[in-house]
Amino acid sequence: MLHVNENYSKIKPTYLFAEIAHRVSAHQSAHPDAKIIRLGIGDVTEPLAPSVIAAMHKAIDDEAGKGEKFYGYGPEQGYAFLRDKIAKVDFQDRGMDIKADEILVSDGAKCDCGNIQELFGPDVKIAVGDPVYPVYVDTNIMAGRLDITLLPCTAENGFVPGPEAAGDADVVYLCYPNNPTGAIATKAQLQKWVDWANENKKLILFDAAYEAFIRTPGIPHSIFECEGARTCAIEFRSYSKTAGFTGIRCGYTVVPSELNAYAADGTPVPLKPMWTRRQTTKFNGASYITQRGAEAIYSSEGQAETKATIDFYLENAALVREALSAKGYKVTGGVDSPYVWVDVKGDSWEFFDKLLKEANIVTTPGAGFGKAGEGYIRISAFNSRANVLEAIERLNKVL
Amino acid sequence: MLHVNENYSKIKPTYLFAEIAHRVSAHQSAHPDAKIIRLGIGDVTEPLAPSVIAAMHKAIDDEAGKGEKFYGYGPEQGYAFLRDKIAKVDFQDRGMDIKADEILVSDGAKCDCGNIQELFGPDVKIAVGDPVYPVYVDTNIMAGRLDITLLPCTAENGFVPGPEAAGDADVVYLCYPNNPTGAIATKAQLQKWVDWANENKKLILFDAAYEAFIRTPGIPHSIFECEGARTCAIEFRSYSKTAGFTGIRCGYTVVPSELNAYAADGTPVPLKPMWTRRQTTKFNGASYITQRGAEAIYSSEGQAETKATIDFYLENAALVREALSAKGYKVTGGVDSPYVWVDVKGDSWEFFDKLLKEANIVTTPGAGFGKAGEGYIRISAFNSRANVLEAIERLNKVL
Repeated sequence: MLHVNENYSKIKPTYLFAEIAHRVSAHQSAHPDAKIIRLGIGDVTEPLAPSVIAAMHKAIDDEAGKGEKFYGYGPEQGYAFLRDKIAKVDFQDRGMDIKADEILVSDGAKCDCGNIQELFGPDVKIAVGDPVYPVYVDTNIMAGRLDITLLPCTAENGFVPGPEAAGDADVVYLCYPNNPTGAIATKAQLQKWVDWANENKKLILFDAAYEAFIRTPGIPHSIFECEGARTCAIEFRSYSKTAGFTGIRCGYTVVPSELNAYAADGTPVPLKPMWTRRQTTKFNGASYITQRGAEAIYSSEGQAETKATIDFYLENAALVREALSAKGYKVTGGVDSPYVWVDVKGDSWEFFDKLLKEANIVTTPGAGFGKAGEGYIRISAFNSRANVLEAIERLNKVL
Repeated sequence: MLHVNENYSKIKPTYLFAEIAHRVSAHQSAHPDAKIIRLGIGDVTEPLAPSVIAAMHKAIDDEAGKGEKFYGYGPEQGYAFLRDKIAKVDFQDRGMDIKADEILVSDGAKCDCGNIQELFGPDVKIAVGDPVYPVYVDTNIMAGRLDITLLPCTAENGFVPGPEAAGDADVVYLCYPNNPTGAIATKAQLQKWVDWANENKKLILFDAAYEAFIRTPGIPHSIFECEGARTCAIEFRSYSKTAGFTGIRCGYTVVPSELNAYAADGTPVPLKPMWTRRQTTKFNGASYITQRGAEAIYSSEGQAETKATIDFYLENAALVREALSAKGYKVTGGVDSPYVWVDVKGDSWEFFDKLLKEANIVTTPGAGFGKAGEGYIRISAFNSRANVLEAIERLNKVL
């Protein structure tokens, strides 16, 4: 008989975005003329950079046989033209010792975050922030790792928990700038995690999907800015928010050559060949067109264009942050991050309903990201300036 | 301590293509002027269809904000515009009862073939053909399923084994038209597998990556042409060979609504919601641009263009097949398939070396695909006509 993987029945259904959609739809039906502004989503709204567009058009003509040549199957790890630029611009130019062969290009950070746990034994214990991006949790539950340590991210710890909360966890997922809280971690805070991991043969899975939003000098863009991270960390990067690639699908994962896991008898086993094996066996590379588009982000035009778009989103975030602060709300994020995390002084869903019903504004209730998110809402800066300004005007009326 | 997934150490390293590359490189170094013709690869060589190219250019302009609208995150299961066309053209128009919501679009059949085993319990026993596409085997070994039943594909059974060879296996991977043997299965042969699966609560994983090469009337393009397949089969489809998408990355998987696996207590558990959960949790959809390109395959121009390209490859295959038959070799495939499987009347690697050294032709030794592939080579029809004709001329001289 065909036995099922019974761990799937242990995942909590993610009602969050379905429930939001349900409430928004009910509200819109009751008020057909209401002009609803959506500040709940984490998806970008601005078009792709012109240099990315141009590079992808050219890549399609390559595939049409009109350009340089036809490209078929590419290397599963990504084309050298992209890996070389990543290593240089994202790491070496910033003083980090990361080589092109330690970078594996993929179709997005969500896939890599979800698949990486395949490399670990079934008994490995996981720790995640609370509130948290649900992919870290669900993918481990699917693999039978049901006992997950939660690291509360609260106003008391500035939404950045330290390793003292990790207990006997073997792997910790860290995400800074954080989704959903918008919190950023200092180099000293990350260094504590790195030291803890090296001292105890633990692993940090560092999600840097939002690093491009960091503007404050000294805030680390990568875990590899910390001393010793090469022996204890894997980093995930995404072009989704950096360059509006949410519908294009490209990201990459950095696995340093000297990073090890351990066999039952304590023998070190390097993780880079394992991740390479995983990707070459179960993945066939990101689209050639996509990778040419990603390469264009690293041109001087691409860098300027993508920076301008992120500056625009950061201005949105600052406007939202300032408006809510002026109304007396305690606000995290919105600086070095596209997300504003608002202490609503009450129930997440009640506040969500109030903004929906009285201001026609959609946000995301913090409780949907975990227990410690109760009492907060997340507001996203991904929207047009006109919508953000109108939303602020409405917020000023109802708050 | 961070324990590793020790199953990775049990995968056999795939020396095949590395070993071929090594021998070809050594030969080229020794004979720098030799014009080597590569008939080993399974990658396409002809450019994308003009209608696909046009659709992708337009899709990029959508993402540039110049077209209809900006597309960000799409549905993980694929856009309705593509799923609807697949259901209609690939299934309903051919008399099969497959609905759009049973189709999940992905970035390729390799990924889906590799990931599908996550839905099954660790004790599930797998059966695969011998010779075989190594992804089926390696992905199960990674998950700890080490005891894999081999179904020998030999001249005696016409390279199509029947369910009597499957023993106590719970899941069987079938691929027709077959890679590497080029063999095709009749409807009666597939119906036997379907009946076996339904009678014994087994599952068929049907890889139909090469279905577009079928020209002989009556040969099934899909497992769902068989009576009862909806309760025992999942099918993988790929645009890689159908439409030259090897570098574009798109395919889909069909999971019928009434298909079940079973909990330990025998309770049926539907697989479609599980696969949907897997894809929504660990995948973020195929690129919007790619999906618009795939949609264009279903236009009348796209259908004509892709059919013409496959006809061209089939003519190549027929030329190779006829040339080797005329020399007295027993040949399978090359009809309804891009692969010609040649009984070399001796050792696979010796014959490979003979063709490389004496004719500057690269093939793939059958032994590289499994024990039962010893004594054969695979010749691929993916090449230009000029190269195929020259290769045949050289073969005629040395054989």
